[in-house]
Amino acid sequence: MVDKKWVYLFDEVEAAEKACGGDWEAVRALLGGKGAGLADMTRANVPVPPGFTVTTEACNAYLEAGEKFPPGMWEQELAAMKQVEKKTGKAFGNPQNPLFVSCRSGAKFSMPGMMDTVLNIGLNDETAQGMIAKGLDERFIYDSYRRLVEMFGSVVLDIPDEAFEEPLAQYKAQKGYKLDTEMTAQDWKAITDTFKKVVKEHKGFEFSQDPYEQLRLATEAVFKSWNGKRAVDYRNAAGIAHDLGTAVNIVTMVFGNLGYTSGTGVAFTRDPATGENKMYGDYLINAQGEDVVAGIRNTEKIEHLAKDMPEAYREFLGITEKLERHYREMQDVEFTIEENKLWMLQTRTGKRTAKAAVKIAVDMANEGLITREEAVLRVSPENVDTLLHPQFDPKEIAQARSGGRVYAKGVNASPGAAVGQVYFDADTAEKMAKEHHQSVIMVRPFTKPDDVHGMLAAKGILTSEGGATSHAAVVARQFGVPCIVGAVEIRIDLEKRQMEANDVVVKESEWVSVDGTTGEVYLGQIATTAPKLEEQTDLLTLLSWADEICATDGIRPAPAGWPTRGLQVWTNADYPADARRARAYGAVGIGLCRTEHMFFETERLPIVQRMILAETSEERTKELNELLPYQRSDFEGLFEAMDGCPVIIRLIDPPLHEFMPDKDKLFEEVITMRVKGETKGLEAKEELLATIGAMHESNPMMGLRGVRLSIYIPEIVEMQVRAIFEAAANQAKKGVVVKPEVMIPLTGTVKELDWIQPRLERIAAAVMQEKGVTFEYKFGTMVEIPRACVTAREVAEVAEFFSFGTNDLTQMTFGYSRDDAERNFLVKYVEEGILPKNPFQTLDREGVGRLMDMAVKDGRSARPDLEVGICGEHGGDPDSIEFCHIIGNNYVSCSPFRVPVARLAAAHAALKHRPGGAEIIEDK
Amino acid sequence: MVDKKWVYLFDEVEAAEKACGGDWEAVRALLGGKGAGLADMTRANVPVPPGFTVTTEACNAYLEAGEKFPPGMWEQELAAMKQVEKKTGKAFGNPQNPLFVSCRSGAKFSMPGMMDTVLNIGLNDETAQGMIAKGLDERFIYDSYRRLVEMFGSVVLDIPDEAFEEPLAQYKAQKGYKLDTEMTAQDWKAITDTFKKVVKEHKGFEFSQDPYEQLRLATEAVFKSWNGKRAVDYRNAAGIAHDLGTAVNIVTMVFGNLGYTSGTGVAFTRDPATGENKMYGDYLINAQGEDVVAGIRNTEKIEHLAKDMPEAYREFLGITEKLERHYREMQDVEFTIEENKLWMLQTRTGKRTAKAAVKIAVDMANEGLITREEAVLRVSPENVDTLLHPQFDPKEIAQARSGGRVYAKGVNASPGAAVGQVYFDADTAEKMAKEHHQSVIMVRPFTKPDDVHGMLAAKGILTSEGGATSHAAVVARQFGVPCIVGAVEIRIDLEKRQMEANDVVVKESEWVSVDGTTGEVYLGQIATTAPKLEEQTDLLTLLSWADEICATDGIRPAPAGWPTRGLQVWTNADYPADARRARAYGAVGIGLCRTEHMFFETERLPIVQRMILAETSEERTKELNELLPYQRSDFEGLFEAMDGCPVIIRLIDPPLHEFMPDKDKLFEEVITMRVKGETKGLEAKEELLATIGAMHESNPMMGLRGVRLSIYIPEIVEMQVRAIFEAAANQAKKGVVVKPEVMIPLTGTVKELDWIQPRLERIAAAVMQEKGVTFEYKFGTMVEIPRACVTAREVAEVAEFFSFGTNDLTQMTFGYSRDDAERNFLVKYVEEGILPKNPFQTLDREGVGRLMDMAVKDGRSARPDLEVGICGEHGGDPDSIEFCHIIGNNYVSCSPFRVPVARLAAAHAALKHRPGGAEIIEDK
Repeated sequence: MVDKKWVYLFDEVEAAEKACGGDWEAVRALLGGKGAGLADMTRANVPVPPGFTVTTEACNAYLEAGEKFPPGMWEQELAAMKQVEKKTGKAFGNPQNPLFVSCRSGAKFSMPGMMDTVLNIGLNDETAQGMIAKGLDERFIYDSYRRLVEMFGSVVLDIPDEAFEEPLAQYKAQKGYKLDTEMTAQDWKAITDTFKKVVKEHKGFEFSQDPYEQLRLATEAVFKSWNGKRAVDYRNAAGIAHDLGTAVNIVTMVFGNLGYTSGTGVAFTRDPATGENKMYGDYLINAQGEDVVAGIRNTEKIEHLAKDMPEAYREFLGITEKLERHYREMQDVEFTIEENKLWMLQTRTGKRTAKAAVKIAVDMANEGLITREEAVLRVSPENVDTLLHPQFDPKEIAQARSGGRVYAKGVNASPGAAVGQVYFDADTAEKMAKEHHQSVIMVRPFTKPDDVHGMLAAKGILTSEGGATSHAAVVARQFGVPCIVGAVEIRIDLEKRQMEANDVVVKESEWVSVDGTTGEVYLGQIATTAPKLEEQTDLLTLLSWADEICATDGIRPAPAGWPTRGLQVWTNADYPADARRARAYGAVGIGLCRTEHMFFETERLPIVQRMILAETSEERTKELNELLPYQRSDFEGLFEAMDGCPVIIRLIDPPLHEFMPDKDKLFEEVITMRVKGETKGLEAKEELLATIGAMHESNPMMGLRGVRLSIYIPEIVEMQVRAIFEAAANQAKKGVVVKPEVMIPLTGTVKELDWIQPRLERIAAAVMQEKGVTFEYKFGTMVEIPRACVTAREVAEVAEFFSFGTNDLTQMTFGYSRDDAERNFLVKYVEEGILPKNPFQTLDREGVGRLMDMAVKDGRSARPDLEVGICGEHGGDPDSIEFCHIIGNNYVSCSPFRVPVARLAAAHAALKHRPGGAEIIEDK
Repeated sequence: MVDKKWVYLFDEVEAAEKACGGDWEAVRALLGGKGAGLADMTRANVPVPPGFTVTTEACNAYLEAGEKFPPGMWEQELAAMKQVEKKTGKAFGNPQNPLFVSCRSGAKFSMPGMMDTVLNIGLNDETAQGMIAKGLDERFIYDSYRRLVEMFGSVVLDIPDEAFEEPLAQYKAQKGYKLDTEMTAQDWKAITDTFKKVVKEHKGFEFSQDPYEQLRLATEAVFKSWNGKRAVDYRNAAGIAHDLGTAVNIVTMVFGNLGYTSGTGVAFTRDPATGENKMYGDYLINAQGEDVVAGIRNTEKIEHLAKDMPEAYREFLGITEKLERHYREMQDVEFTIEENKLWMLQTRTGKRTAKAAVKIAVDMANEGLITREEAVLRVSPENVDTLLHPQFDPKEIAQARSGGRVYAKGVNASPGAAVGQVYFDADTAEKMAKEHHQSVIMVRPFTKPDDVHGMLAAKGILTSEGGATSHAAVVARQFGVPCIVGAVEIRIDLEKRQMEANDVVVKESEWVSVDGTTGEVYLGQIATTAPKLEEQTDLLTLLSWADEICATDGIRPAPAGWPTRGLQVWTNADYPADARRARAYGAVGIGLCRTEHMFFETERLPIVQRMILAETSEERTKELNELLPYQRSDFEGLFEAMDGCPVIIRLIDPPLHEFMPDKDKLFEEVITMRVKGETKGLEAKEELLATIGAMHESNPMMGLRGVRLSIYIPEIVEMQVRAIFEAAANQAKKGVVVKPEVMIPLTGTVKELDWIQPRLERIAAAVMQEKGVTFEYKFGTMVEIPRACVTAREVAEVAEFFSFGTNDLTQMTFGYSRDDAERNFLVKYVEEGILPKNPFQTLDREGVGRLMDMAVKDGRSARPDLEVGICGEHGGDPDSIEFCHIIGNNYVSCSPFRVPVARLAAAHAALKHRPGGAEIIEDK
C-alpha cells in the first residue's frame, strides 16, 4: 500500500486540489487556512518563502493513534525538508549554510488557543557559530537563538513564561538596562545559556541541539494543542467541529531584523475601521514580526514604506492588489523584507468593524469586484445591529478597562450604549428624566409591567436578575433601550437606594455607563456616538439591494395582492411614533399592534378597571363606550403612519387581572386594617380583594385570555373592532389607503373562530355601511397554541392569515413558563448543552419549527394564498428569520429597531435557499 | 318525474330494504324504529294490524319546505289507506263498517319529547253511530270517542290537558263518581260533547268530523313535534343528530277493551332487571294499552295470561321466541288481544339494567344465540361502571315506581345511587354533612365553582338545569358523586327552601333517593347495595372473554417479551393496597406509581421540607438518606403485590413548593405579627416566607418540575432510583418476579434523557451488583410535552418506553390550565359546542391525538419494539381507550376502579378495529 500523502509542499497546491476533488473549501480544511493561503500565493508567483504543510488529516491520525505519527508522515516531512533545502540552497542543521524554519499551526478556521509560532527552528550552538563565522551579526544570532529556546521551552515544552521572563528581567536590572535594545551580543549569549539551563531545570533534559528533533517536537506540539483546553473551549463556544484538526506549516525563516535594508509589517488592503479603499498598516525597519505586534517600538504607517524602500513597496502594492482581486475580499497580510527582498508570509480575509464591512461590501460591488448579492452576504445582520445603536468610543472603553472602571458584567440583553444617573424605582426614574431632564439609568432587581413608564423614560436599564428574555430584556429590545440583565454581582439595596458590587457602592444619582452590546457596566461617564440610519448611505444602499433580493427570491406562493414572492419585513408597533420609525427603517407593514398597552395608560386604566368590575352587560358597555374614542384615535394614528401598508391589530390578549391592582399589596392592606381594627373603607377593599381573588389563576399563561376571554366577554373585542373600523373609515375618507387586519389571539380550535369571527365581521360591515366607505380588510389569527398548528387545516378555513406567536408557541411546545424558566433551569440547560440556545431567542427548529412547518403546509392546503407571518420576538433573530424563509412565511415582524437587521437577514436567507436549490425541511 | 316513495305499507319492507341498498340500519333510519319493527314483524308473519309508515324523509322534506307536505306524499298516504281498507275489509269514515287507526311517531332512536300516540282516528259522530248500530257497546264507543277528542285536542291542537281534565273532574264530582269505571255510556257521550266544545272554545273551530282531516292533522303534528323544544333539548343532551326526522306510523286500531275476551299488555322476553331468561311483563283484560302504562288498574303478571287466555298466550310465547331469535336480542313487545285474536303492536330491543345486560349477553352466548364477541359488544363499558358503583335494590325501585314515588327524571350525569336529606345551598349542605353527620343531597338550579365545597360534602347532587357537561356534572363525575342534572320538572324555590315537581313539594331536610345511573329521583329512602366484582360471575365471565379478544386482536407490534398483541389494562396505583385491588380487578401492570404522594405523609413531610431547604448538597443528601428507607419499603410492597407484572414508577414530578407551607397563610401571619409588633419567631417566619417566595412561579404547571427538577437537583431522583432498585433486589431475592420500569416525567428534549438517564442507570447497575442479583428493568419517559411528541424519534433512541401523560399533554396542546379552565371558560366552551366534550375527560383526537399518533409512529421508527401506554385520566375513558387502540398503544393504565371498564372498552376497540379492517388515522 502506498502511504497516504500527509505533507504538501507550498508548490503542490494542484495535488492538494486534486486530492480534494477541486473543492477549495476542502483544500482549506486539509491544509488549514494559513497553509492554503501560502500555497495559493506560491501558485500565483507571490514571493513566499519555501516550505510545506503537514495536513489536518495527519493531525487527526496522530491524535487517534494515541499521539503517534501516522505511518510515512515523518518520512514525508523529512523529504519535504530536502526539497526546501534544494529550493533555498541551504541545509537544515548544516553550520556552513544553515536553513532555519518556523513552525506554525493553522486550522481551517482562525482559532485562538492553539499553539503559537515557533521561530528559528534549526538554530543550535553549531549553526549559531556557523552563522557568525559567515559574518552575520552576532547580536542578531544570539537574540534569535534565545528566542528559539524561549519559544520552544514555553510553547513546545510547556514551561511557564515566567521561568524565562524573570531571569531576563533580573539580568537587565543587574546591568541597569531598561530596553531590550540595550542588550549586547554577549548579553544575549549569556541569556541563551540561562534559558537553556531553565529548560534543563524544568524538564530534566537539555534543550535539543538536534534540528530534526526540534522539528519533530514542534510538529507534535501543534498537533497536541488541538485538544488543549483553551482550544476545545473556544470551539465549543464558536460552534466549530472538534474533528477538523490543525495543519502544521513549516516555513523557511526570513529575517526582517538583518539591518536597515530589512523590515517587517502587517497591513490591510483597506481600512478595517472605516472601510476606506486605501492600504492600512504598520511596519518596522530592522525588526521581526512579533515586534510589530508587541508594540515595543513605535511602528511606521505603511505608506511611509514608499519612502524607506520604494521598490519593495511598489512590489508590495502590486502583490496586495493582486491578492485582493484574487480573493475578491479585503486581505490582512504579513510580510517581511530581508535585505531588500520582499517575502509574503500570510494572507487572509481581514477582520473589520461593522462600518467597514458595509462600506467595503458596497464599494467592491460598485467596483465590479463582487456582485451585489455577494456584497449583501458579506455583511452580517449583527453588523447592521451594531451600526444602529449608540456606541461607546472604543478608546474611552479601553481606558476605562485599564483604569479599573469596569463595575460589573451581565447579560447583554438589548444592545447600545447608555450613560446616566442611577435610580432604583420607575417613578423616580421617570420623574428625574421628565421633570429634571436627567439622563437616567433605571436599576432594579427585575422589572414588571408596572415599571414600563420608568423604563421608557430611561436611557438604559440594568437589572441584577433575569435572563435575556426577562421582562426587562423584552421591553428594552422592543423600545431600543440599551439593557443589561442578570448582573448577578450587583446587590441592590432598595431601602438604602444604592447598589454594591465588588465592594464598590453606587448611590442614587451617581453616574454609570451601560454597554448593552457587551453586557458591561462602567463607573462614571463614557462618551458615546449615536449613528443615524439616514446618514449611513452605504448601509442604505446595501439594504436596498437586500430588499431587491427578498422581493424576487421567494419560495412561497403569493397571497392575493401580494407584491413580492420573498420575505417582507414588518414591524411590531403599538404607537404611531413607533410605526413611523419602523417605516423609516424600511418596514412595509405592521405585524403586531398590541391593543392592551393602550389600556394601561394613566387616564384609561380606571375606566378599564370599572369595565372589568361591571356586573351587567349594560354597565360594561357604558365603560367600553368611554374607551372607544381612545382606541379609535390610537388606530387613526397608526393607519395614517402606515398609509398603504397592512396593519395587523391584535384584539385584547392578557387576562383581565393584569389590569387590576396588585393582589398581594391589597391583601397586606386588608390584613393590616383588620389587625389595627380600622374599618373605614375596609369593606370596599375586602370586596375588591375578593373580586381580584376570584380572578386569580394558577397558571395565567394558560388561562382566561386571548380568544377565550373574547368568547367569555365579547363586548370588549366588539368595541375594539368597532374602533378599528371607525378609525380606518375615517382615514380612508381622508384619502389614506388603509389595510386593517384583525388578529384573534390564542386560537386553539377553529370553533373558537367560528364563534367569534362572524360576530366581529358583522360589526366591520356595519361600520363601513354607517360610514359609507369600503376598503380591504382581513380577519385572521395568531398561531401560538400547539393545537392550532396541529389542526391548521381547519383553522385556515376560517382565518385569512396566520401570524406565528412564537413566544407563546415556544412556551407551550416546551411546556416552559418563560418568566420562570429563564430564572430557573433555562440557564443551566444552555450551559449543559441540553438546549443549544435559549429557544426564546432563537427558534427551536426541531420542535417548535416542526409544528410551524406543519401549520404552514396544512394551512395552505386549505387556503393556498394564506398570508403567513411571525410576530414573536424571533421575528428579529437572523437564524429564526432564515427558518421563516424556509417554511415559506410571507413576512417577519419585529421591533422597529430590528427592521434593518431583519431586512438583511431575509436577503441572506433568500440567497442561501435560492429556488431551484430550495431546501425542504426534512420530513421526520 | 316519478314521485319519491314517501309511504311504505307494513308489507313493503323489501321495497324499503331495496331503497336502502339492503342496509337494515338505513331502513331503521327511513322508517323509524317502530315502523321498521312493524314491517319486519309483518314479513315474519307475525300478526300485526295492517298499516303503513310515512318516512322520516317525508318529515324532513315537510320541515324544510316550511311545513308543507312534499309533492305526492299525501296522495301516497291516501293510497296506502285504501290498501289498509282492503286488507281489513273496513272503510275509513264509512259508518257502516268503519276503520279506525292510530297515529304514532317513530324516529330511528326512541326519543321522549315527541308527539305521543293519537288513538281512534276515524271516529266521528257518524261512525260512532254506525258502530252502535252494528251492536257495539255504546259505552266503549263514547269512551273511545272522547279519548280521540281529548288526545287530538291536546296533542295535535296543542290545547292544555287541564282544559279537558277539569270539566271531566267537575262532571264526576257532580255525579258523585270516584272512578272512570262508574261512568256510563251517556256520561261518556256527554263528556264527548263537552270536549268538542272545549276544542271549539280554544281553537275557534269545530273538532273535525272529517276522518281524513283528522289523519292529515295528526300526521302534521307528528312531523312538527320533531322540532318541539323538548325533543330538541333531548337530542342535544343525548347527542342525537337533528337531521334524522321522525316517521309516522298509521296502524289499524285493535281494541283490547272489547270485553273479557280482549286485553292488552307489554312484556320483555327476559327479565330486564335481572336478565333472567323468562318472560316478564304485565297485561290487563278489557283495557287499552295506555291503561297498562298509566297504572290506573292493577295489572296482572304476564304468566297469568296462560290461565286467562291459554291459546293466545301460547301463540304469544311462540311469537316472542321467534322475535328474540330473529333479532338475537331481548325484545320489548306490546300486544293487544281483540276478541281472542292476538295482535303485536310493537317490538324493539328491550332496555335493561346493567346487571341484566351482562347476564343476557352471557346467557345468549352460552345458548349459542350470539357469539362471545357479540356478547362482549352487547355490554357497554358504562354498564360495567354502573355495576361497580353502589346501586339501589331493584325490587325497592320497582316498588317505588309502582308506588308513584318517582319524583322526577333528569340527565344521568354521574352514576351511582345516593340517599339523603335535601339542602338547597352549599354552605348548609356542607354544615349538615360535616357538623350534623347527615347524608345530604344538594339541590340547586345549577352549580358554580363557589358550590364545590357543598358538592363534595354531599352524597348526591341534583340540579334542575344544565346538561351532562354542566359544572355540576363535571365536578360530580370528577369526584365520583352520583348526580342528576337538568331535572326540568322540578321547580326550586330557594327562598321557601323547597322544591316542587308534579305537584309534590319536598321541603328542606326531607329524604330523597337519587339514581345517577338512570337519572331518576325518588321520594324517600331506597336501600342501596354495594356490589362486589368477585360475586358477579357473569361479569367475570364476560370480562374474561373481553381479555381473550384483547390478547389476540391487536394492531400493534409486540415489544420484546410482550405476551399479547392487544391492548392490556394496567393501573395507576401508588400504594400496595391499590395495587392489590387493581390486580383483583384484572390489571396486569402498574402504569403509574406517583412517588411524590409518599412525600406528603405526615412523618415524612418535615424531612422533605428540610431536604428542600438544604443549602448544601451534603445537607440535602443527609435528609434524602432518611427518606430512602421509606421509599424502599413503599416499593417493596408494590413489587410484592405486582409479582410478575411490570411496575412503572415515575420519579418526582411536582415543583418543590408544593411540599412547602402555604405562602398566603404565612404572609398573613408575618404581616399580622409586624402590625402587632410581635417579634418572637418573626425573623424565622420572614426568612421562610422569603424562601418560599423565591420558589414562587408564575406558571408552576410549566415550571421547575419533572425532569427539569431532576437535572436541577439530581440527588432526589438518585435516591429514588436507589430505593427502587434496592426494593426490587430485596424482593427478587425472596423469589418475587420484579419488573421495575423507571419513568422520567416531563421530557421535552432527548438531551434531558441524555443527561439524567445514564446517571440513573449507573445507580441501577451498582445496586444490582451490591445485592448480587439481576432482573429485567427499563428506563423510559412520560410523553406529556408537545415537543416530546414532535421529536419522538430522537426521544425513543434513549427512552425504552413511552407513557402518554395526557393530562399535561392536553393542557399544553390546548394551552389550557386545567385548574383554571374547568372553572372558567371550559364549561361555556362545551355548552356552546366550541369543544365537543371536556378534553380532560375524553381525549381530543384531532389535536392531542394527532400528536400522540405522531409520537407512536416516530418513536417506533427509531425503536420498533417501543412499549407505549397511557397513564393520564383518559386511560379509563372508553372513547379514549378506543383511540389508544387505533394508534397502537400496548396498554392503557387507569385507576383501579376503572380497570374492569377499561378491559371491556379495550375489547370493544379491538373488535371494532379488527386487523385486516384496521383503521388508519386520516393523515391531515
